[in-house]
Amino acid sequence: MAGRCQLAPVLRGLTRSAAGLSKQAALRQSIARPVRHLSHSRRFLFQGTSAVRKDEFTSEKYPDIKRDARFAQVTPEHVSFFKSILGSESAVIDGVTTEAADDIQPFNTDWMRKYRGHCKLVLKPGTTEEVSKILKYCNDNMLAVVPQGGNTGLVGGSVPVFDEIVVNMSRMNQIIEFDEVSGILVAEAGCILEVTDQFLASKGYIFPLDLGAKGSCHIGGNLATNAGGLRLLRYGSLHGSTLGIEAVLADGTIVDDLCKLRKNNTGYDLKQLFIGAEGTIGIITKVSIQCPQRSAAQNVALFGIESYEKAQQAFREAKGQLSEILSAFELMDGGSQALVRQVTKNKHPLEGTYPFYCLVETSGSNAEHDGEKLQSFLENVMEKGIVADGTLAENETQIRSLWTWREGITEALGHLGGVYKYDVSIPLKELYQLVEDIRARVDAAGLLGDTDEYPVRAVVGYGHMGDANLHLNVSTRRFDERVEKLLEPFIYEWIAERQGSISAEHGLGVMKKKYIGYSRNPTMVGLMKNIKKTFDPNGILNPYKYL
Amino acid sequence: MAGRCQLAPVLRGLTRSAAGLSKQAALRQSIARPVRHLSHSRRFLFQGTSAVRKDEFTSEKYPDIKRDARFAQVTPEHVSFFKSILGSESAVIDGVTTEAADDIQPFNTDWMRKYRGHCKLVLKPGTTEEVSKILKYCNDNMLAVVPQGGNTGLVGGSVPVFDEIVVNMSRMNQIIEFDEVSGILVAEAGCILEVTDQFLASKGYIFPLDLGAKGSCHIGGNLATNAGGLRLLRYGSLHGSTLGIEAVLADGTIVDDLCKLRKNNTGYDLKQLFIGAEGTIGIITKVSIQCPQRSAAQNVALFGIESYEKAQQAFREAKGQLSEILSAFELMDGGSQALVRQVTKNKHPLEGTYPFYCLVETSGSNAEHDGEKLQSFLENVMEKGIVADGTLAENETQIRSLWTWREGITEALGHLGGVYKYDVSIPLKELYQLVEDIRARVDAAGLLGDTDEYPVRAVVGYGHMGDANLHLNVSTRRFDERVEKLLEPFIYEWIAERQGSISAEHGLGVMKKKYIGYSRNPTMVGLMKNIKKTFDPNGILNPYKYL
Repeated sequence: MAGRCQLAPVLRGLTRSAAGLSKQAALRQSIARPVRHLSHSRRFLFQGTSAVRKDEFTSEKYPDIKRDARFAQVTPEHVSFFKSILGSESAVIDGVTTEAADDIQPFNTDWMRKYRGHCKLVLKPGTTEEVSKILKYCNDNMLAVVPQGGNTGLVGGSVPVFDEIVVNMSRMNQIIEFDEVSGILVAEAGCILEVTDQFLASKGYIFPLDLGAKGSCHIGGNLATNAGGLRLLRYGSLHGSTLGIEAVLADGTIVDDLCKLRKNNTGYDLKQLFIGAEGTIGIITKVSIQCPQRSAAQNVALFGIESYEKAQQAFREAKGQLSEILSAFELMDGGSQALVRQVTKNKHPLEGTYPFYCLVETSGSNAEHDGEKLQSFLENVMEKGIVADGTLAENETQIRSLWTWREGITEALGHLGGVYKYDVSIPLKELYQLVEDIRARVDAAGLLGDTDEYPVRAVVGYGHMGDANLHLNVSTRRFDERVEKLLEPFIYEWIAERQGSISAEHGLGVMKKKYIGYSRNPTMVGLMKNIKKTFDPNGILNPYKYL
Repeated sequence: MAGRCQLAPVLRGLTRSAAGLSKQAALRQSIARPVRHLSHSRRFLFQGTSAVRKDEFTSEKYPDIKRDARFAQVTPEHVSFFKSILGSESAVIDGVTTEAADDIQPFNTDWMRKYRGHCKLVLKPGTTEEVSKILKYCNDNMLAVVPQGGNTGLVGGSVPVFDEIVVNMSRMNQIIEFDEVSGILVAEAGCILEVTDQFLASKGYIFPLDLGAKGSCHIGGNLATNAGGLRLLRYGSLHGSTLGIEAVLADGTIVDDLCKLRKNNTGYDLKQLFIGAEGTIGIITKVSIQCPQRSAAQNVALFGIESYEKAQQAFREAKGQLSEILSAFELMDGGSQALVRQVTKNKHPLEGTYPFYCLVETSGSNAEHDGEKLQSFLENVMEKGIVADGTLAENETQIRSLWTWREGITEALGHLGGVYKYDVSIPLKELYQLVEDIRARVDAAGLLGDTDEYPVRAVVGYGHMGDANLHLNVSTRRFDERVEKLLEPFIYEWIAERQGSISAEHGLGVMKKKYIGYSRNPTMVGLMKNIKKTFDPNGILNPYKYL
């Protein structure tokens, strides 16, 4: 049978993978959680749409943004009020009346050190009532506030621009209740995603979201930024799985919408506005969320594919054949894999090199059934010539190793210098065209090459193909203004023409505030401004960002 | 093995089912779509929270609701304006300048004939621009409007109370595009759910929603009421699967948020407000929705269970063991099954009688795997003594037949006389307690019994256990004010005490407008009123309802 004959490369790949991956066993430790790792190592100094000097203030980087004179400056009287209402000594980090600049730095800067504010006061409320008292006082006294979760964002949304007070949610980290029959979890916003997921694992459930920063990010921050991550394809968006929230509005009003029901059709679904609002209309204090059953079995396969056209076909086939067990379908281009290889010196699990690679993950309740389905899927796509080579992980170690070729891209790029990163959604048909067009554009300008004379090392793309979510990365050797000018606003215009989104999952923050017009028309932006005004008339919540 | 021994009842059940169900083959035709069926047969004259005389006007039934004097009455000038802008002759049903009262009746009355309005003008726009022109004119001239989809609702949301103009969406019924790789469908709001689903079936996809009224209801109406239905357990809510909408605001502004991307984090997710808004902040004209892969295999089992406690255990086990293939878990009490038996004269698929029955459906990509999982689940729950008896459908006919014992309840109840129906959400642990408490309450008042002297025949419960969504039904022989007084507001208070929802999936409409306070606190209702004012300052959209 033709199918069986063509299966040979899979089996070869598998052998190689089984052998090769053992060498890579330790790699997961260093690469698997790039965010937490990088936030300590500070290996590279700029990343994103524009280069920053180390320790440059956001206010210097964005000179167009002016401090809003309506906002008061924090005084010793303000500080003593906050000290009086917050239960704990350590709940106030006070750089106004004491010299606590060093203590405040981690709250003033994002993990990439791309954004840096001038905040002098950090408050860490322990209860919803404390959040309410803080905001009421801030609103009455025109003090601007930045809500802050795990501070793992990529667009500068969770750090101040000027002297806004940081309200950090890390002390509100309790799991409140979990119903083992329904799978409904109620927890405080400051719970760390990974800790929450580990709690759920002990009950046979899973948090319906997974992402690289899970070791640091808060579930409240996940909701506030409508985080997408690795398994949206399977578990859907937070707009679907979130059942309720408790939030505090700018004036201190506590909005109790902490519904623990899957169905509740009684009025406008206001909680949805807080999901993805990036802390601009209220601070989420508690979350009620529907958690899926944890899968007993997990399988991962990695393919080499000859064209983007065939990658799309592979995705279509995976949906059809793996259907209910498909939990991730990730795309990586050849360039991104070459960079990972270059940095890690690891042998790639597939022998040849291919322009595209796909990582397919299945999660199901029966390992044997899932293995059969995946094997039969592999045979089928090879038989049809859709996939050129493939390898199937056989155990947990191999699964983790295969994932490093996807999850390790961010860190590998970081090792090599500055990176311009774009997180965008594009209708699937043209998803990869953006990478090719940018590569051609940089090349035509004579800025792309293998040697030191060229500022750009590579233009690569990867991402969540199952969600039509591309991460475009331009890896550079040094800052060069010509590169920046080639990229923007060209990229945003390119995306707008195709009705894509300039922010798939990372949000707007400071970085994309002025670009919202590329993804939303003036009517929509006008309505959004009305919403903002309704919920936060004084505009004290996370100013200078979002809209 | 104990498991094998205890399996005997399953096998017995199966045999019986296979034999018994053949007699019922035709039953599906008459029962499967109660809504469409009933809307023509008009078999029973009252249903819901209060009894209505045939052809009673809503304004008579709810004398507290007064016509808002700010609204203009429709004049011949208005009619001629609408005739001038609507492309088609049949797009205006005019009871103002012509005698079209009979033609207008179907638009003035809901399918249960529970609500009846005084509307004299029905408009059927064919394009978004026409909807926009209609609403701009109505807003400028203070003409109130009722958006109307398939008019299959249960709470009077889609028919006028007084002389509001009906804007019926049935002419906007085109599928605009479908992407076979991503599964994203874009369609006009007036597409009938079943027609849309049949189109998707031809492409290997399924609409992420299924409900009894599918033969008549519109997908725009499904979104406007945030319909739940049979497979929410599997495919999640419309808040998760809807990617975008196009809608027209009260002043005629077209909101183009017809996003065709799974991820788009650029500003507040405004479309969410329209989902479940029941036409009070705009008219949805187009929909973009993520459709799941259609499952190749479907299996259905029906169990007899000795207690509600064990029904919960069965659900927990089904989630654990059937996990990704579980697509419905429905609960029916013994009373509801007895009524279906009484009306249809069919033999129940299970021999004994049980206080509870559960219908479990699986949908997956591999029939053999699914069958194995379901069989092993059945063995397991019987071995553990959770399930007393069970039967497994072996083919499509049997699957349909088993479903009639769940889907046929509504119609069976209708055959027997007036029904007070409550669609509520209650945390799972106490879900069925409401039925027991109401039954005891009606019984204690001496109103419940088997003979004609008692006004109440039965108090039964059934529903979507997977979603903690109970349909409480009080089946009566005749209208009796004492019954009504026993039920309300007792039921709403009972639910509020347990943080349930007074409307799980049917919405507020006219029926539950004044009860929203039982499920939403004043802060939430205040915020909702602000939203309404922002989107519809003159209040012309679906007045007298919702808030």
